[in-house]
Amino acid sequence: MTVPRIGVTLGDSGGVGPEIVLKALAGGRGLPPASIILFGDSRMIAGEANALGLRFTADPWRESQRGKAGIYLSEVVAPAADRALHRPDARNGDASFRFFEAAVAAARGRRLDAVVTGPVSKAAWKMAGLPWRGHTDYLESFYPGAIMSFWSERLLVALFSHHLPLKEALGKIRKAALLDFFRGLSAAAGRIEGGPREFLVAGLNPHAGENGLMGTEEEQEIGPAVEAARNEGIPISGPHPPDTVFRRALGRPDALVAALYHDQGLIPFKLEAFESGVNATLGLPFARTSPDHGIAFDIAGQGNADPRSMVEAIRLAGRFTSNAS
Amino acid sequence: MTVPRIGVTLGDSGGVGPEIVLKALAGGRGLPPASIILFGDSRMIAGEANALGLRFTADPWRESQRGKAGIYLSEVVAPAADRALHRPDARNGDASFRFFEAAVAAARGRRLDAVVTGPVSKAAWKMAGLPWRGHTDYLESFYPGAIMSFWSERLLVALFSHHLPLKEALGKIRKAALLDFFRGLSAAAGRIEGGPREFLVAGLNPHAGENGLMGTEEEQEIGPAVEAARNEGIPISGPHPPDTVFRRALGRPDALVAALYHDQGLIPFKLEAFESGVNATLGLPFARTSPDHGIAFDIAGQGNADPRSMVEAIRLAGRFTSNAS
Repeated sequence: MTVPRIGVTLGDSGGVGPEIVLKALAGGRGLPPASIILFGDSRMIAGEANALGLRFTADPWRESQRGKAGIYLSEVVAPAADRALHRPDARNGDASFRFFEAAVAAARGRRLDAVVTGPVSKAAWKMAGLPWRGHTDYLESFYPGAIMSFWSERLLVALFSHHLPLKEALGKIRKAALLDFFRGLSAAAGRIEGGPREFLVAGLNPHAGENGLMGTEEEQEIGPAVEAARNEGIPISGPHPPDTVFRRALGRPDALVAALYHDQGLIPFKLEAFESGVNATLGLPFARTSPDHGIAFDIAGQGNADPRSMVEAIRLAGRFTSNAS
Repeated sequence: MTVPRIGVTLGDSGGVGPEIVLKALAGGRGLPPASIILFGDSRMIAGEANALGLRFTADPWRESQRGKAGIYLSEVVAPAADRALHRPDARNGDASFRFFEAAVAAARGRRLDAVVTGPVSKAAWKMAGLPWRGHTDYLESFYPGAIMSFWSERLLVALFSHHLPLKEALGKIRKAALLDFFRGLSAAAGRIEGGPREFLVAGLNPHAGENGLMGTEEEQEIGPAVEAARNEGIPISGPHPPDTVFRRALGRPDALVAALYHDQGLIPFKLEAFESGVNATLGLPFARTSPDHGIAFDIAGQGNADPRSMVEAIRLAGRFTSNAS
């Protein structure tokens, strides 16, 4: 049996990225049967392993190689960057982008089935002169239909828009764009083993507008988009009152809430799945997951970062690729 | 010792209001030492008690009377309205408003220390020709600084704005208005025994704008308002990233999250406190609380409605008035 090939990027070494990646890979516990390929600079990796007192060894990865389970290294030489810097830094931003860029190139060339990313700093990317606001933003430059989603045992959420000022996000709520989003969501979910089979759409306004009493987007844009998607056979309902729809989906692995803006989805998700939540980009020709927490500059370098969310991200990548292998 | 006088309104009889009110009062368990005065139509009350198989008796309330613990009735004759109608109805809307109006009049005249409200239908109020969007909206017509807040054992939340279309709510986020809100919050909390002593302000944009990368309201309006409040001695911090600030306040009875719009506060609150959450209006000369759930037309008339949130609302009213008595 051929196992999937899962690339893992080291993240920004100013934060907890390298620490949680090495803890997840060195432990080996809970990882799926896969070729797991670490994308990073071997000097940084050795320095981090040393600081953590971890033994970490990995054979060099040969891109032509298929199917042997184990941990491998894909060397990406990056400018020496400071460990646990506790703040955004242009060199660290540049390095974390290079690891990611190399893994995405391999996945686009079908030499990887999945990419799991260590956390990066959006501010550091900006300081490094990069135009993307984060991993998903970069992936959207290749795949405009990419969808940001969040997975945990308790709650599944997808975002209609993500890293936009809230006012700008509200301006994007239009029937045609929503219908595209629902179609993309349904197609992507259909390819995931044990994935969601029902979509609950959150409204935008208090009480989903309460029949037009508090806002008109539900009647003019969201409702008609849900109706059109349902007419295409997509198992979807809504718009539901935003303050009860997450409760309704809680504990149901077959139901995913479609949220209309970043915090509408992430406020409830982070309450329910803080340590083990996974961010997954849907609508790509490969799987892409990451821990749902940030770079955590504040606790970097102390050795106390919890790798659970990273382990779950690698596990979910394994699940997403189980049909591909 | 004189006990506080707590008015309880029956709510809209098309939904679960009368059911949870009668269950809470007839059971008597968990209620604070108080004169508890039910505002409603005695025919409706008798009909509901009969349907539920509950024995409910109450002496007529004399407004001049002070301080005797027990359950009393303040008769408010209202047009006969259908029980468990499962939908908004003008007559029921009118009746539920009259019960509330009578209780508020008594509280404004200092004949009550607190008003606890049974759930009403905003749509039914509109059908009855009433211009207010709900209880808090009506109270704001007398007390413009009224603040909607939500209380549970796990989480405390106050809303800067509530029943407005989201776009309109965003337009209200200005430094001067925020500062007034923070002042009102601090003054009200200071009068509550065991109330919150620290205020965490949520940002508006993803990651609280991440230093202006995603939105400017944090730097231009919210941050300066927090700073100004802190300079006045108010124990307040923020703006915090919206998707982590609720987690940060969870389980801390001394910390309250100031949310900038309805769903920002109520999505997390309803996840954490669905059955026992209480809505409290702060900044009034009397206490006002209610269950945080709605009218629940869908389960009306079945006898299965859970009165826990109503009992908690009466308990919280007792706590708020403990300094007054």
